[in-house]
Amino acid sequence: MVVFLNYMKYSAIPTAQTIVQHCRAKEIGNIVISPGSRNAPLTIAFAENPFFKCFSIVDERSAAFFALGMAQQLKEPVVVLCTSGSALLNYYPAIAEAYYSNIPLIVISADRPVYKLGIGDGQTIDQRNVFKNHIGYSANLKQDVSHASSTVLQYRPDWLEEGTMEDIQHEVQTFNDQQLNLAFDISLKSNSPVHINAPFEEPLYNTVLEPTVSPQLNIEANEIVDVPNLEPHREIWNASSKKMILVGVNSPDKVESEILGFLANDPSVLVLTETTSNIHHPHFFNSIDSLIAPIEMQLDSDELFKKLRPDVLITFGGLIVSKKVKAFLRKHKPDHHWHIGGQTANNTFFCLKEHLKISVNRFFDEMYAQPIKTDSDYFLSWNKVKQGYMLKREAYLKKIPFSDFSAFGQLLGSVPDNYMLQLANSSTIRYTQLFDLNPSLKVFCNRGTSGIDGSTSTAVGASWAYGSPTLLVTGDLSFFYDSNALWNNYIKNNFRIIVINNGGGGIFRILPGKDDSSVFETYFETRHSLSAEHLCNMFGFDYRTAKSSIELEDELKDFYKETIRPMLLEITTPTLINDKILIDYFRFIS
Amino acid sequence: MVVFLNYMKYSAIPTAQTIVQHCRAKEIGNIVISPGSRNAPLTIAFAENPFFKCFSIVDERSAAFFALGMAQQLKEPVVVLCTSGSALLNYYPAIAEAYYSNIPLIVISADRPVYKLGIGDGQTIDQRNVFKNHIGYSANLKQDVSHASSTVLQYRPDWLEEGTMEDIQHEVQTFNDQQLNLAFDISLKSNSPVHINAPFEEPLYNTVLEPTVSPQLNIEANEIVDVPNLEPHREIWNASSKKMILVGVNSPDKVESEILGFLANDPSVLVLTETTSNIHHPHFFNSIDSLIAPIEMQLDSDELFKKLRPDVLITFGGLIVSKKVKAFLRKHKPDHHWHIGGQTANNTFFCLKEHLKISVNRFFDEMYAQPIKTDSDYFLSWNKVKQGYMLKREAYLKKIPFSDFSAFGQLLGSVPDNYMLQLANSSTIRYTQLFDLNPSLKVFCNRGTSGIDGSTSTAVGASWAYGSPTLLVTGDLSFFYDSNALWNNYIKNNFRIIVINNGGGGIFRILPGKDDSSVFETYFETRHSLSAEHLCNMFGFDYRTAKSSIELEDELKDFYKETIRPMLLEITTPTLINDKILIDYFRFIS
Repeated sequence: MVVFLNYMKYSAIPTAQTIVQHCRAKEIGNIVISPGSRNAPLTIAFAENPFFKCFSIVDERSAAFFALGMAQQLKEPVVVLCTSGSALLNYYPAIAEAYYSNIPLIVISADRPVYKLGIGDGQTIDQRNVFKNHIGYSANLKQDVSHASSTVLQYRPDWLEEGTMEDIQHEVQTFNDQQLNLAFDISLKSNSPVHINAPFEEPLYNTVLEPTVSPQLNIEANEIVDVPNLEPHREIWNASSKKMILVGVNSPDKVESEILGFLANDPSVLVLTETTSNIHHPHFFNSIDSLIAPIEMQLDSDELFKKLRPDVLITFGGLIVSKKVKAFLRKHKPDHHWHIGGQTANNTFFCLKEHLKISVNRFFDEMYAQPIKTDSDYFLSWNKVKQGYMLKREAYLKKIPFSDFSAFGQLLGSVPDNYMLQLANSSTIRYTQLFDLNPSLKVFCNRGTSGIDGSTSTAVGASWAYGSPTLLVTGDLSFFYDSNALWNNYIKNNFRIIVINNGGGGIFRILPGKDDSSVFETYFETRHSLSAEHLCNMFGFDYRTAKSSIELEDELKDFYKETIRPMLLEITTPTLINDKILIDYFRFIS
Repeated sequence: MVVFLNYMKYSAIPTAQTIVQHCRAKEIGNIVISPGSRNAPLTIAFAENPFFKCFSIVDERSAAFFALGMAQQLKEPVVVLCTSGSALLNYYPAIAEAYYSNIPLIVISADRPVYKLGIGDGQTIDQRNVFKNHIGYSANLKQDVSHASSTVLQYRPDWLEEGTMEDIQHEVQTFNDQQLNLAFDISLKSNSPVHINAPFEEPLYNTVLEPTVSPQLNIEANEIVDVPNLEPHREIWNASSKKMILVGVNSPDKVESEILGFLANDPSVLVLTETTSNIHHPHFFNSIDSLIAPIEMQLDSDELFKKLRPDVLITFGGLIVSKKVKAFLRKHKPDHHWHIGGQTANNTFFCLKEHLKISVNRFFDEMYAQPIKTDSDYFLSWNKVKQGYMLKREAYLKKIPFSDFSAFGQLLGSVPDNYMLQLANSSTIRYTQLFDLNPSLKVFCNRGTSGIDGSTSTAVGASWAYGSPTLLVTGDLSFFYDSNALWNNYIKNNFRIIVINNGGGGIFRILPGKDDSSVFETYFETRHSLSAEHLCNMFGFDYRTAKSSIELEDELKDFYKETIRPMLLEITTPTLINDKILIDYFRFIS
């Protein structure tokens, strides 16, 4: 049992006290609160306790993505707290993103007392297990009987048939403690979102000066994970002359530079890094689509791919963006696919052999324990392709007119050192993958569900937690979708947004089979003529705009300088030529 | 089997053809589409068929509430269609509202093929049964094997082990038809939202000129419902001298005027009508809180309530807003509570005896079949209270300064005949309940979950379906929350919005126990200084503003005149005095 000395207000409701003390004991200090009445006991208990840093955001959809952005940076759980009813359901898009991106959101919802469910009371839905498909654990807490007992007993005279009030309250407390310990443990150990649903009886606002409950706080030591025997893997590793390492979403500085050095200097190793991998070395291959497209376009592409097929594929990190590498590896399957680290391993290429739950550093330390020089031209074969497209990309950028493609080239080159770069879905991340980025940037994108619904809110939350300057690059649809992201008091002056406004969902133009019909323009592209300027006026952003390459160059000069307000740059590109320029790019580099 | 002659494009994918033909056969003609690629087969099939009226709305949260508003007015199912991934989860707030308000939304989601679930593909979640807690039925369709078979078989060579492709496709078709018939039947019969999840293999955009499948379309006749024996009810009815009828959310013109006459002239009957009941008669009692408050405030209130307690309580319509009538009836329970009509009956007062599934007209026809003059002063006792508060309310309105309360009084009196009046949650509906409305108005409010998340989108959709002029009255938080409601091409010039902007969640000031701390202002009231003006500029609304009673009177003169753009009037009221004026109102009329 842990006791905290303090002089503050507590909710008079035992369950509220219990939840807050569990958070305190587990050192979960960031609480994103959406307004409501039913959640008042928790709002008061968190906000009146100086240990917690509380944030107030009205739109729950945005609030949950904001919390996700914070948790993404802090690498620790962040709480989102809301009232009863449909408020809770607005969390769902962010919860699903957290579930697939292994980010520990702690969702706490206030609920009506059980006896008031399903009787037609306002703001009442069935909140229990409501995120069942995408949640690490759902703790459905029991209602206190000691609190507001006269109210409870008026409606539920049967309540006390099975014991005294003290007995029953003791049972409630034991059950709730056990459920909370379980939920927090799962969240901390598996980095997964969990849901805690807490029914509260009125009155909701009453406070006490001393805690009246002493929860059983079970703070477990970190588990010791057995290291699997890697001898068989090393044998295969050493015997192979074609090894591919493919890195998805990955935190900066996770892999030691010594390991990167081993990999970079091994001629039998090809390291493919996605933009969100945050891994850089001149010998590694980013822009995976630029690398694979020139091979795809050859007449004898199948033969070439067969030769370039890896024997061993090693993946680590989160989900893979590149469609071309997926198609390649699904068709030309490696003999061995091992996924290293993380809680889950995806069978993305339909040939996953093993999930090794150890750190990436540990794994490669073992592989390179006894340096063996493998004779292989695997790196060199791929590098020839790379050198080819790199020169051609430069030439292509010089010849094309102002467009999404050229604008991405310009703006990505402008980002100052050490910026955090937040990318929206889906055009933004796909275009960015085609370019080389400044290796000092920290890059993030919601690739768990790849939704357009919360990129801005995530960036705002991440920027708050990161502290240093942040740039969000986003398309027009994802920006307008999540405009409520700007409706809060946690946007720093050094926060920057670039909106690539091509007048609709440009990505749909690229998809095979579309035609230029009015059906296409209305229901796929959703053509519009909105500008971000009004939202900037509304939410206190400086607004800049660029409609040509020269204007863009000019705007980017001052864009990152210190300002007293955050700033947004809207780049307007021509709607109709972007898809052709992108498709021609792949032809041109081939 | 129904066959339609037509000359249009069909998706090449059998499941897409099947879904669209089911909608056509059931005459479900309104389809609200959000953009995406995975749902292309359905988007094409709906948009290319002139029977369907399609709507394009990007933000799925808003799209679903828009569809809900249409279905609310049309009293028939409306389809919402989206792509795979978190897009679908954004429908959830509207689905829950539809579930508790008995509005038939048909939710159709495109999904990845089953073998691509859980392998880390983009925009992929577990969509099956994802709305389990709040849905009439979830149809998880099977994937066609005949379409794109080479793609399927590449990954799933086991697919055809159990039969020829024709056999298996036949099984898929039979299963999908059966599931669709079931889902549509449930939606149509119980006015409940249903979810249809359809997995699609690529290529997604291919079309054919003739349908390739002939679905089994099961169009059932309407069920004949047995009329229950009402003899026992009539005996109780006739014997009782204190009968209360309480009407919640109810469509206009649902109850025959003859019935209203019977009830109005029966001295033993008290009819309490909520603002959303759309029932009017000079002898009926709206403004329930104004009626009950003066009794609550008496020293001998418990004695008075005992005398005014009904023997028989009859409810019909949807959920009840008035907290005071709930408290009264929960404490002073009637001997008999019957709920008439509808699919569900809520035990709101913990004393429901029976749910009679017949029409309200039929029930009262039976009750008044043999007119019996009951000697009772029940109506008169309540009417004395009513006459008292009505005079005092008038006096109170004259003496108070400009505030939420006075603004509602002014604006509600201004609405022209036959307008549809859409009300947001929660201050708006609660204030409106305190006033007498023009009986020709049609009044609606999302009281299923009482959320602030979709009132504007609902009003926009309802206005489109209603055709005649519509006024939405909303608070500032609910308006900014759902600002994406204005992001579509379906807002009519005769659409009007009045935003009561009191700088935050004014309703939280009214709740007992709050104090004027910074915690209160930040986490409950969420104080802000936003204005609706920028959104008006962005989305093409004329903007008007009023900051005093005189300005408001002036603005209301022209507000309902014909214009070439929709119009919004923002009424700014003083943040700090509203709660006091409301609380004093109840004291003043007592």
